[in-house]
Amino acid sequence: MIKLVNYLNKTNQTISTCESFTGGMFANEITNISGASNVYLGSFVSYQNSFKQSIVGVGERTIKKYGVVSEECAIEMAQNTLKLTKSDFSISFTGNAGPLAMENKEIGLAYICICSKSKYKVVEINEKNMNRIEFKENGLTVALNLFLDFIK
Amino acid sequence: MIKLVNYLNKTNQTISTCESFTGGMFANEITNISGASNVYLGSFVSYQNSFKQSIVGVGERTIKKYGVVSEECAIEMAQNTLKLTKSDFSISFTGNAGPLAMENKEIGLAYICICSKSKYKVVEINEKNMNRIEFKENGLTVALNLFLDFIK
Repeated sequence: MIKLVNYLNKTNQTISTCESFTGGMFANEITNISGASNVYLGSFVSYQNSFKQSIVGVGERTIKKYGVVSEECAIEMAQNTLKLTKSDFSISFTGNAGPLAMENKEIGLAYICICSKSKYKVVEINEKNMNRIEFKENGLTVALNLFLDFIK
Repeated sequence: MIKLVNYLNKTNQTISTCESFTGGMFANEITNISGASNVYLGSFVSYQNSFKQSIVGVGERTIKKYGVVSEECAIEMAQNTLKLTKSDFSISFTGNAGPLAMENKEIGLAYICICSKSKYKVVEINEKNMNRIEFKENGLTVALNLFLDFIK
């Protein structure tokens, strides 16, 4: 997380997030770092679908066709967050943390999308044996590696 | 936090938050609780002023006249969040976590507002000797007590 904050401070760029299964953990951890306030605009913690649709603007069609635990939903969450907050980067997190399976998709399935104005990248996560908090923490690790790869 | 989730589940009501100095800590902690997904809609982690203004709709006049570390800003954040998310309750957090003082206001000054459709309540916090993380944690404790008092 410190690497990300330092990179953004050095290059004078900003980031925002849109968090579903991580539930604000990314926002909480980045705002523990002194210096984050220059580069971190904020997060939509879109925990329920109504928040994803009415605030973040994820299409009803996307949710009906692919579900919220999908690559397509992750991409829309990230791209809409970039537009709404006018940040240089955004990262979205959507997934099935359990204990109940949503949309008949496996528990432990998640999608993380990073995007800038010119490109995006999505990764799929499949983790069977993590509890709720471990699953969130793992999501953050994946997102940070994705970011470092994205800016290469 | 469990008391809050249980109360909302029992009464079939929802809550949303708007977090500045707590930076998503409330969202992160409530989403660690199984059963929160029924009652917690989500959070605006409005870390930078641009997020508070363009997403949450806090008025430029309010910020110019009173600053973001003010009772007035906390009330607008909570009331706008209630309207935007259509929740039954909302809680907002705005304050000066340091290390630098904003708006010539003391470090350790913060405002938390809770509101429902019919009423609101604001508390002021003044804590001189807390680090960034302790200040966030203290904000959560104050908010939870405020909630339990609000529903009496």
